[in-house]
Amino acid sequence: MAEIGSIISNKQVILKHYVAAGSAIKESDMYVTTTSITLKLPEGSNALLIKTLYLSCDPFLQFIMKNTPGLTGYTFFSPGSPICGYGVAKVLESGRPEFKKDDLVWGLMGWEEYSLVTNSQSFSKSTTLMYHSPTIQGFLNEVSRLKKGEYVFVSAASGAVGQLVGQFAKLAGCYVVGSAGSEEKVDMLKNKLGFDEAFNYKLEDEDLDAALKRYFSEGIDYYFEQVGGKMLDAVLLNMRNHGRIVTCGMISQYNVPQPHGIVNLMLVGLKRLQILGFTHRDHDHVYNNFLDFVLPLIRNKKITYVEDIAHGLDNAPTALAGLFTGRNFGKQLVAVAPHDHHY
Amino acid sequence: MAEIGSIISNKQVILKHYVAAGSAIKESDMYVTTTSITLKLPEGSNALLIKTLYLSCDPFLQFIMKNTPGLTGYTFFSPGSPICGYGVAKVLESGRPEFKKDDLVWGLMGWEEYSLVTNSQSFSKSTTLMYHSPTIQGFLNEVSRLKKGEYVFVSAASGAVGQLVGQFAKLAGCYVVGSAGSEEKVDMLKNKLGFDEAFNYKLEDEDLDAALKRYFSEGIDYYFEQVGGKMLDAVLLNMRNHGRIVTCGMISQYNVPQPHGIVNLMLVGLKRLQILGFTHRDHDHVYNNFLDFVLPLIRNKKITYVEDIAHGLDNAPTALAGLFTGRNFGKQLVAVAPHDHHY
Repeated sequence: MAEIGSIISNKQVILKHYVAAGSAIKESDMYVTTTSITLKLPEGSNALLIKTLYLSCDPFLQFIMKNTPGLTGYTFFSPGSPICGYGVAKVLESGRPEFKKDDLVWGLMGWEEYSLVTNSQSFSKSTTLMYHSPTIQGFLNEVSRLKKGEYVFVSAASGAVGQLVGQFAKLAGCYVVGSAGSEEKVDMLKNKLGFDEAFNYKLEDEDLDAALKRYFSEGIDYYFEQVGGKMLDAVLLNMRNHGRIVTCGMISQYNVPQPHGIVNLMLVGLKRLQILGFTHRDHDHVYNNFLDFVLPLIRNKKITYVEDIAHGLDNAPTALAGLFTGRNFGKQLVAVAPHDHHY
Repeated sequence: MAEIGSIISNKQVILKHYVAAGSAIKESDMYVTTTSITLKLPEGSNALLIKTLYLSCDPFLQFIMKNTPGLTGYTFFSPGSPICGYGVAKVLESGRPEFKKDDLVWGLMGWEEYSLVTNSQSFSKSTTLMYHSPTIQGFLNEVSRLKKGEYVFVSAASGAVGQLVGQFAKLAGCYVVGSAGSEEKVDMLKNKLGFDEAFNYKLEDEDLDAALKRYFSEGIDYYFEQVGGKMLDAVLLNMRNHGRIVTCGMISQYNVPQPHGIVNLMLVGLKRLQILGFTHRDHDHVYNNFLDFVLPLIRNKKITYVEDIAHGLDNAPTALAGLFTGRNFGKQLVAVAPHDHHY
């Protein structure tokens, strides 16, 4: 156990260089190094000294790693500095009255074993280790708008967000179909997560329209969009009048030199569709409300949450890069330090 | 004056053949012919016998002329029959208690001098001759959501709908810029309709993004979308976080063999945008509410409404085809029979 006041080694995952727009994030865009840190808050500081437990691999990190123009509202990091994203940590020493030693906290933190966090605005106490993307919080507003019997399609359905969206839609009484990128993921959606149907989009790539028509003979009322590209074009053809498309990202389009151009967007007017974009950034402040909602569902086995855990910061670059190739099976986390993990 | 019971000649504009998807509507897709009609309702009929006064040239007509798959909710017509669209007519003989002789009525009617209308569900009494597309009715819900000081962009701004949208936004206290396809139209927007700025998109075609940045250094809060294609892609780059895009059609994309693929749609999530589609079809029942709202504004010269009137059914095919090449200057109408035209 690291003692306050001691100087100890501190492993970090560093961004090597900005990644070119349109390129995939690769392991080699990061490196792991070890520095040292003095486990002591400066006198009178209102910072937090934390020990990192779990880190979340989120697609939004690549916008920062690519230095995307026009990006606002993120915690930025630059080449030579540790990656910074959402995680859960234990407080070693606190300069803020809201937090005390041994509290578990959730917020934006560096990818390193120990951090002196001077900008801890994003932090909140977390009584549990629920690590997935706060994106899903934004979806909660949406859940209340789902009506029993509606036809719901979820892409990237086995991922961090899709798996919950699909299960929430099932709880709301909807017919729910998901798409994913392997037979194993499809099997999980149907047999573990309770989706009505699921399909492997890679096997339907030649005619996604036909695949959707097979599962949605009446059309789609609600599409939870996470991939963009050809799938979105095919979905537009199959939306019902007054349907809603909710998107928190289009992961198929981030890392391609030339994005697929959406050609069926004129149907938005004709079918009177709504397309609503949201990200976690508007919802971070209700993270604890979200936990209050979802944790009982998980404990009572109404909802299953599938996680893919990489162990140790040495494996973090591979885990993050794997998000963009669909390597992860469920929500991708990095376990930085051993800790009991339960809901 | 045509007498009830007489048999008189009846000029009609007939759809010659279905138009291929992706082709522009041309004059030669229609022909004008003259038949005869007996000016008499059948005994006990609940139809209406009407004399056509004005017809509205609306972009949606091409969906029917192209026999677009999946289209619902329209009044269809097929090759060999008259075009059928919105118009204003005078009742010659009424089989419905709500209407009487000499009433002015508004609704879906054939492109012919006289009609026996058996399906008059769309009809309502119109105390005035306000002929433009009912699309604008749907926008009224939107107007209330515009906030003073917001940055508003309107494409196809000199057309039937755009000219009103821009003026309503000005009344709401917004900064309003419009795009149109000629210097003459740009001049009208700035000097007659009170837009803050306007530009000719044909002269900015090489770099629409730069043009928008020139007029919207702070970005766009609200885009009234009517054209789609390259303009939409450029607008997405310039939308502010939480901006709204409202679309009732994308006229640049209807008549091209291969639509422009929208590549910047991933910004919808990142910027938390809303895209809302609507058409007149959800709003026809509030047409008279719309008139109550807009006519006083026109009479008190708070709003100017610019119309382009073709005279006689012989000129109707040219007028309709001209919509798709931007030939019209303001709302395109066909005056079928002489009638006082005022608001």
